[in-house]
Amino acid sequence: MSNFAIGVDLGGTNLRIAAVDEQGALVEKVTLETKISLGRDHVISDMCGAIQRLTNKYTSSAAPLGIGVGVAGIIDMHTGYLRDSPNLPGPDYPVLAEIERRLKTTVILENDANTAALGEQWLGAARNYPDMAMITLGTGVGGALVLGGKIFHGMTGMAGEFGHTTIEPEGNPCGCGNRGCLEQYASATAVVRMAKEAIASGGAPGLASAVDSDARFSAESVYKLAIEGDADARGVFRRVGRALGIALATLVNSLNLPMHVIGGGVSSAWEAFSPAIFEELRQRSMVYAATAPADPMAPSQGAAVHGDPGSDRRTIITRALLGSDAGLYGAARLPMIAGTNR
Amino acid sequence: MSNFAIGVDLGGTNLRIAAVDEQGALVEKVTLETKISLGRDHVISDMCGAIQRLTNKYTSSAAPLGIGVGVAGIIDMHTGYLRDSPNLPGPDYPVLAEIERRLKTTVILENDANTAALGEQWLGAARNYPDMAMITLGTGVGGALVLGGKIFHGMTGMAGEFGHTTIEPEGNPCGCGNRGCLEQYASATAVVRMAKEAIASGGAPGLASAVDSDARFSAESVYKLAIEGDADARGVFRRVGRALGIALATLVNSLNLPMHVIGGGVSSAWEAFSPAIFEELRQRSMVYAATAPADPMAPSQGAAVHGDPGSDRRTIITRALLGSDAGLYGAARLPMIAGTNR
Repeated sequence: MSNFAIGVDLGGTNLRIAAVDEQGALVEKVTLETKISLGRDHVISDMCGAIQRLTNKYTSSAAPLGIGVGVAGIIDMHTGYLRDSPNLPGPDYPVLAEIERRLKTTVILENDANTAALGEQWLGAARNYPDMAMITLGTGVGGALVLGGKIFHGMTGMAGEFGHTTIEPEGNPCGCGNRGCLEQYASATAVVRMAKEAIASGGAPGLASAVDSDARFSAESVYKLAIEGDADARGVFRRVGRALGIALATLVNSLNLPMHVIGGGVSSAWEAFSPAIFEELRQRSMVYAATAPADPMAPSQGAAVHGDPGSDRRTIITRALLGSDAGLYGAARLPMIAGTNR
Repeated sequence: MSNFAIGVDLGGTNLRIAAVDEQGALVEKVTLETKISLGRDHVISDMCGAIQRLTNKYTSSAAPLGIGVGVAGIIDMHTGYLRDSPNLPGPDYPVLAEIERRLKTTVILENDANTAALGEQWLGAARNYPDMAMITLGTGVGGALVLGGKIFHGMTGMAGEFGHTTIEPEGNPCGCGNRGCLEQYASATAVVRMAKEAIASGGAPGLASAVDSDARFSAESVYKLAIEGDADARGVFRRVGRALGIALATLVNSLNLPMHVIGGGVSSAWEAFSPAIFEELRQRSMVYAATAPADPMAPSQGAAVHGDPGSDRRTIITRALLGSDAGLYGAARLPMIAGTNR
């Protein structure tokens, strides 16, 4: 067996722990419920127990390379403290020190948007692209930047907050304090809000009857209507694509990266929103216009089929490939690249 | 004498060539007129002649480290071709190969926004900050990104186009094809346009009489009125600051850099527009709000007086220190850092 690392994805519903080998093959994956209601000590106990069992099981046949943990929240890269984490709630917490104390070894802690990006860069849509950005469309909109195959953290670990790119300076208020952030137009929450705005404006009968008949009306409900051809539902996703196109135009003009991956639950609606992305990008970014692929939506633009990205030098925007496993693989990748430069 | 490099700033009016030593001290500077009307061959001849004379003069007492040239236009980093350069006009041109053929040595060619940033990073406002961004407010708005003390080029050398960050998605059309770019609100051209818009709206008597009495009415004229207290002129610069604040909020949220330098001719009006920058930033960027200095406008926030930027971890926005010499020093810096890792 090849050497392996342990990756952890500490999500709000599931706590997943995997052993992944150096080639990116899954050795074993354990899925537990994240028992947040029992307190963070309990969650950390569950996690450390599973890590220990997996490590012991495979250490006789292969060398363990280390442990990486992805978790929501703001991680202070200098102190290892975790802030504003929904999955390990409570005041500022020295989570890294606590995990390391229990496991008696070093652990690498990382924001879950960053581990997802690293996973897609290593094994997914951005394979072969050491420089890439990822935008994750979930309840909110997250983001991450990978440069030279490593996460770019910025000064305090907060780089990659593409979800708070200003789209409309006087637009919808955002929880971050700004107005008109990308998150207000491209998250699952925003899809539902925009659908309800369309209903309130009185001209969206399909959306209105869906809300009336479905107590669990969600972004997915809007997407279902959109693929059935409902014009108002399609309009909502055009707004999603337009907002993403405006944000990506600024990102492409600023960093001129070759690869941008769109992930998260809302990215299932790729067909409904991506045409508007490319329309906006082509008009709004001279850097994109100079480097756009002939057919930006062609599946072959996905990175997995690209050989040498330097040889064609096209700006790719594509959807994520690894789904919810991206973060788990990315977390396992962390100890494998920890020693390298940058 | 310490070893020296040759830096060239090939501007639209002046062609400046300097020998600069490894500590950043100016050994000698030569200023020539850029005779664009005589054709690019003539300009390149003048430049190569001056480089040769300076190099020969000092090579007996010190080792030449190389030659860096900063020029406006889009440089293809892979081929050395120059496009859209106002100072070396004509079709796509293998400018690098041509200069190297004449000088019989290797030369590093760089966009002038990038050399200005590198100069400020080496010897100016961002000294001690290996990671920094620069925004240059001139006739247009340029930008550049320095990471790890080196210019970040992106895939095709077009990274750092912060002047084309979208501020108002349905705003003023921009030459780049987008609408509402930062350049449309923060360049010298934009200052004049916004002043004339204020006059056209009928409520700006001070600006109106300035335009009537001054055939060379310019951004500087608006600034003079602003420091005299004219409310409409001050309003124009508040719009400049607001647009910069919106663009910087997205930049700070995306890269979480410690240092941002505002340069170019319009930055002389720093006192008039910077308060609006900090107002917008504090509201619009959660990353800035978490890392803002106690007094963002204090001159002591300039980097030259900072010791270890890692110890305080504040997000600094400050004005450039080197004026028009930044690009010349940055160009000389290019060969000094060419061999090092990114």
